Amino acid sequence: MSAALQAALASLSIEAAPVTHTAAPTHPEWTAALDALSDTPAHRRIKTLVFKPKTPKSETPIPVVVVSDDATTASSGAIGAALKLKELRLAAPELITDSLQATKDDVSPLSVTSENASRVRVALDAAVAESSDLFAVRARSSSETVFIPGTAVAAYLASTGVQIDTLAFADLAAAAPAPAAGGAAKSQPAPKTKPALPGAENARIADAELIGITVRKELDFPEWYQQVLRKGDMLDYYDVSGCYILKPLSYFIWESIQEFFNEHIRSIGVQNCYFPMFVSSDVLEREKDHIEGFAPEVAWVTRAGKSDLEKPVAIRPTSETVMYPYYAKWIQSHRDLPLRLNQWNSVVRWEFKHPQPFLRTREFLWQEGHTAHLTQEAAHEEVMYILELYRRVYEELLAVPVVPGVKSEKEKFAGGLYTTTVEGFIPTTGRGIQGGTSHGLGQNFSRMFDISVQDPKAREEDRGKPEGRLFVWQNSWGISTRSIGVAVMVHGDDKGLVLPPRVAQTQVVFIPCGLGVKVAQDVKDKVNDACAEQARALRDAGVRAHADLRDNYSPGFKFNDWELRGTPLRIEVGPKDIASGSAPCIRRDTGERVSIAIDSLVADVPKLLEKIQREMFERADTEFREHRKVVTEWDDFTRTLNSKCHVIIPWCEEEACEDQIKERSARTVETEHDERAPSMGAKSLCIPFDQDAYPSIEGRSCPQCGKAAKRWTMFGRSY
Amino acid sequence: MSAALQAALASLSIEAAPVTHTAAPTHPEWTAALDALSDTPAHRRIKTLVFKPKTPKSETPIPVVVVSDDATTASSGAIGAALKLKELRLAAPELITDSLQATKDDVSPLSVTSENASRVRVALDAAVAESSDLFAVRARSSSETVFIPGTAVAAYLASTGVQIDTLAFADLAAAAPAPAAGGAAKSQPAPKTKPALPGAENARIADAELIGITVRKELDFPEWYQQVLRKGDMLDYYDVSGCYILKPLSYFIWESIQEFFNEHIRSIGVQNCYFPMFVSSDVLEREKDHIEGFAPEVAWVTRAGKSDLEKPVAIRPTSETVMYPYYAKWIQSHRDLPLRLNQWNSVVRWEFKHPQPFLRTREFLWQEGHTAHLTQEAAHEEVMYILELYRRVYEELLAVPVVPGVKSEKEKFAGGLYTTTVEGFIPTTGRGIQGGTSHGLGQNFSRMFDISVQDPKAREEDRGKPEGRLFVWQNSWGISTRSIGVAVMVHGDDKGLVLPPRVAQTQVVFIPCGLGVKVAQDVKDKVNDACAEQARALRDAGVRAHADLRDNYSPGFKFNDWELRGTPLRIEVGPKDIASGSAPCIRRDTGERVSIAIDSLVADVPKLLEKIQREMFERADTEFREHRKVVTEWDDFTRTLNSKCHVIIPWCEEEACEDQIKERSARTVETEHDERAPSMGAKSLCIPFDQDAYPSIEGRSCPQCGKAAKRWTMFGRSY
Repeated sequence: MSAALQAALASLSIEAAPVTHTAAPTHPEWTAALDALSDTPAHRRIKTLVFKPKTPKSETPIPVVVVSDDATTASSGAIGAALKLKELRLAAPELITDSLQATKDDVSPLSVTSENASRVRVALDAAVAESSDLFAVRARSSSETVFIPGTAVAAYLASTGVQIDTLAFADLAAAAPAPAAGGAAKSQPAPKTKPALPGAENARIADAELIGITVRKELDFPEWYQQVLRKGDMLDYYDVSGCYILKPLSYFIWESIQEFFNEHIRSIGVQNCYFPMFVSSDVLEREKDHIEGFAPEVAWVTRAGKSDLEKPVAIRPTSETVMYPYYAKWIQSHRDLPLRLNQWNSVVRWEFKHPQPFLRTREFLWQEGHTAHLTQEAAHEEVMYILELYRRVYEELLAVPVVPGVKSEKEKFAGGLYTTTVEGFIPTTGRGIQGGTSHGLGQNFSRMFDISVQDPKAREEDRGKPEGRLFVWQNSWGISTRSIGVAVMVHGDDKGLVLPPRVAQTQVVFIPCGLGVKVAQDVKDKVNDACAEQARALRDAGVRAHADLRDNYSPGFKFNDWELRGTPLRIEVGPKDIASGSAPCIRRDTGERVSIAIDSLVADVPKLLEKIQREMFERADTEFREHRKVVTEWDDFTRTLNSKCHVIIPWCEEEACEDQIKERSARTVETEHDERAPSMGAKSLCIPFDQDAYPSIEGRSCPQCGKAAKRWTMFGRSY
Repeated sequence: MSAALQAALASLSIEAAPVTHTAAPTHPEWTAALDALSDTPAHRRIKTLVFKPKTPKSETPIPVVVVSDDATTASSGAIGAALKLKELRLAAPELITDSLQATKDDVSPLSVTSENASRVRVALDAAVAESSDLFAVRARSSSETVFIPGTAVAAYLASTGVQIDTLAFADLAAAAPAPAAGGAAKSQPAPKTKPALPGAENARIADAELIGITVRKELDFPEWYQQVLRKGDMLDYYDVSGCYILKPLSYFIWESIQEFFNEHIRSIGVQNCYFPMFVSSDVLEREKDHIEGFAPEVAWVTRAGKSDLEKPVAIRPTSETVMYPYYAKWIQSHRDLPLRLNQWNSVVRWEFKHPQPFLRTREFLWQEGHTAHLTQEAAHEEVMYILELYRRVYEELLAVPVVPGVKSEKEKFAGGLYTTTVEGFIPTTGRGIQGGTSHGLGQNFSRMFDISVQDPKAREEDRGKPEGRLFVWQNSWGISTRSIGVAVMVHGDDKGLVLPPRVAQTQVVFIPCGLGVKVAQDVKDKVNDACAEQARALRDAGVRAHADLRDNYSPGFKFNDWELRGTPLRIEVGPKDIASGSAPCIRRDTGERVSIAIDSLVADVPKLLEKIQREMFERADTEFREHRKVVTEWDDFTRTLNSKCHVIIPWCEEEACEDQIKERSARTVETEHDERAPSMGAKSLCIPFDQDAYPSIEGRSCPQCGKAAKRWTMFGRSY
């Protein structure tokens, strides 16, 4: 405990009983650290939250330090109303640091001092202020805690001169039930315009910096992912939970995927179109098996303006049932086949699970292709062609390796015949992720929707009869913006995003360097001009190049800025470089510096970008391969999973066995008490098409159930 | 009256009193024709509707002929239930023709004969069957009516041997209130999968053909528009009212607009992005003036699966309030300006007015650009640049002339500073249509959302103070799929769509001709190969060409088919053309035939397409110019409007005057009892930028109010 704090408490005759514990920078760790101590006095725990009221931009905000019992809840709205403050929201880390020299995790009533008292105000729970119970209070340190009565907390605060409002939080909580201040509700951190639910931010931010990523990818992957997306300018959080803003950097990736995919589907005769986003309930619920999986997530419009709709309409979660009644109408003859339509649209699945940007969002962008064919062969050929396009989107555009294969019966698309898939892998978590699926729907939907034609091969006597009808063979296939999240997770590093050159909005950035205050203006002009000129020359050559000539930022700031955004190549140009005729080019993916003659930039940079693209894929591919392990004994199964790998087993392909594998691979983890491994069980991810990559399956038996194995199958924990 | 019918009635001792009247092919015309007769007996009127029950595709449907008093209502559902038939829906024209040799307008109980009795069944209103009142019944002709008692109608039907169910419709109507069979409710014709509301189809279909357009553009424009869209394969109706399916032909036009617009906005630094479709109510309602116009049309999601949402969320009607809270967050310094974002998305405005494909739909596609600038000048420059792009979309892509100008204060975008617009014109109706708008929002939204920066030009002493803050200057601009509807309305003719070459998915179609049954196979092969080869050569030259080699359709059928779809150029290739080395090329827009040497197609077709594009614009431009009349006396105002023209007046620009103009130009029409002229009043459409096209405004006064005129302003009736 600092001498200053000791003196302050002593001057108030507060008998502080300080204890030391392991450094516990976060609130949960603090709780755990206190619980681990054996000889602490009986105590309650202080919770301290810092809020910012709505403040005109021109004024400095006065944060409100809300001090209460850990178990007490009251809404920020109710507290704000009691204090006559508008729109209380959790303060940004910078504001807490600036005003209280603390972080949101270790801030405590003792963070208020006579020095900073004028810059903050306090809302104090009467249940604390008036209690003689002992409270655990952080002693301005992550490893020290004092136990003092509630009355002493109030006395200490009063001694600093800070403005205090003592309120009965219990009454406030009763009056305004939601959202609970300090409730344990999980929620996404919200943007500045809306209050986040307090208690949401348990990530381990150690040293708050304003710009860079503050956590390491390997140590706190979820927090890293959020930071890299937001600070890298890919995405922003939105005030409707589960929805996110796709900023230009990420939308550009999506447009790149669209361009590639459109070109190739057009070449086989697929046409783009647009169906309405609304579905009537009758139509939506027509195909029971199919809709069963979506029903709990369907968003319903029940009102327009102030009028209730006579019949609610759903927002499409996918468009099979939207489109197929029209296919039945449009397809009257085998000459109307194939019918191949695709649309780029957004769909809504109102998931109640924890949302995650790109990976699990309530609205997401995708394309959905829906086609109808005369023969099963023609349908299957298309399924495989599209899957190959999905593989290329991942491997050739996003530099993300995937394993193409077919889903097990359990994992296939409900209502379809079979599902092909490209399966990706996130090395940091060892979890698999479905990348895109191309479904052979068979004749299930065409029977349901009566999409049929006179079979051109029917026998003469069957024409006009049911025996002469042929139900069309259908496919559906889709890939979504989830792919962008996968690329971020696979390539990003502790400095931010790392974008593959082919999908990077800016591929090359020129940064003027070596222009200190003593450098003459004409030299500065010359360097800036050289940057602008080279960028223009590259753009003319088809490279997305930019010269960052902002004069109010240092080169170092710019380096960080463009690194955060994943720009594949940085070229530094200073007076010496111009003199020597060559400039250092720094690769974002490896940090490697290569010197390229300025005259050769137009020729060499495109090659270097392609090299970066190729090597990014190769590294990721090697990593994925190293994490796909052939396992033939059950004993090795969960251990291999726990080492963040997928397993390839000779499998019997029986559904009961798949259930068993999931159950046994989950349970095993729990008995091992390995907290860090995911406790979920493994699913079959796909039966890879490339069976030849593995030894002969002949005579092998399934390691789980012992039955005869049919094909090598990839299992893993997954998103 | 035919001899057969006369004989049939005579054999039943039915005393028919036939009257002859002017040919009245539609039901309303029939009603009018009967009313116009002076010496008819007192009578009621028979209404006959034909329904199709749900029937497996493999079976031939048995239509139900519903015969009732014109004034009686009963729901098709109730009738269906009484007959134990599922999903009764209005029968397609073809079905009525096939089974009863009649159209929906002239079908009557007398259309049932002993010949067709086995192919239909009858549901007869007991109120007719049991009444001795005289009923007017069409005598299998559009110009003859007989007056016979209800009991005779029943007797005649019984004599044909048709299956008859006599039902008390009044009881059915009481039991099931909606939808009313034969009620006057207006509704869009629905696709096959949903029953249309009976009574909906009052359009004047004279001769039902299966493929072509059956009404003339000039005579029944609304019906023509629907047919041209559906038969031309642009669009299909959808079972959620006010929503439509954009088929590939129309979506291609949209993609062409996207490509053009994206290229140009990127060149000025606009970036594409995507914001969520959902808006919280707090955010939506933040800008009161702005939202007032949209509030009654906002669709609300209140439920997900079976759970009610804690707070309903709206679907964006436009994105100002969705985006601007984030602009406030992202724009911290003048160096963050300009911020220029655009998105291609769909928005929802749940209009309760009669929907119209493309023009007024509940969901529509558009782009919305939202930008923020440091200075008013920079903002204004962009407003004008974007408006010019909109003009080019209309004039250069869609070949539709528009008048660029600024909206009056009354007509501008609520919450903005000024609205610029391009205004189109539909000659057939003489009505104007807003084509696209580019709004200067000024600082209204930035004040509301606190989007401000430190003014880089602020005086030293104002820095950090409110006086030193600068609210950004904002714009928003949008163009929607409505533009496609405008192009259809302007260019289409009685044969179907006429597409401008630049946006036609297929620009040129080759059709093999002169291949009768006697032609040898090798000659056929040669002609087909030539078509395929020339199409390929044109495609290689960047022309969207197609060879229609379907062997089951005649050339005549194909001509009609491609004309319906508006294909700009048809090239007919037969054995003689190959021999002579040149082929007839038929322009869709003019019907003109030009002969082009087959060897020169690659060189000449692109030029011809550009000529078609140019001439389509020139014709439409001339027509619009001829319908913009300078008017300086109030007496000429409404008369000019009534001649399907816009008027250009020297205007005072006062809102009260604008209200007066609207009222006076509407009222005048009513007193003239001119049924065919729209009765709505005229609005100001825009104040054209090109004021120099008109005489000097100096010293002129407003023809309506007499005050001093400020600028020439275009008024008109509009969509």
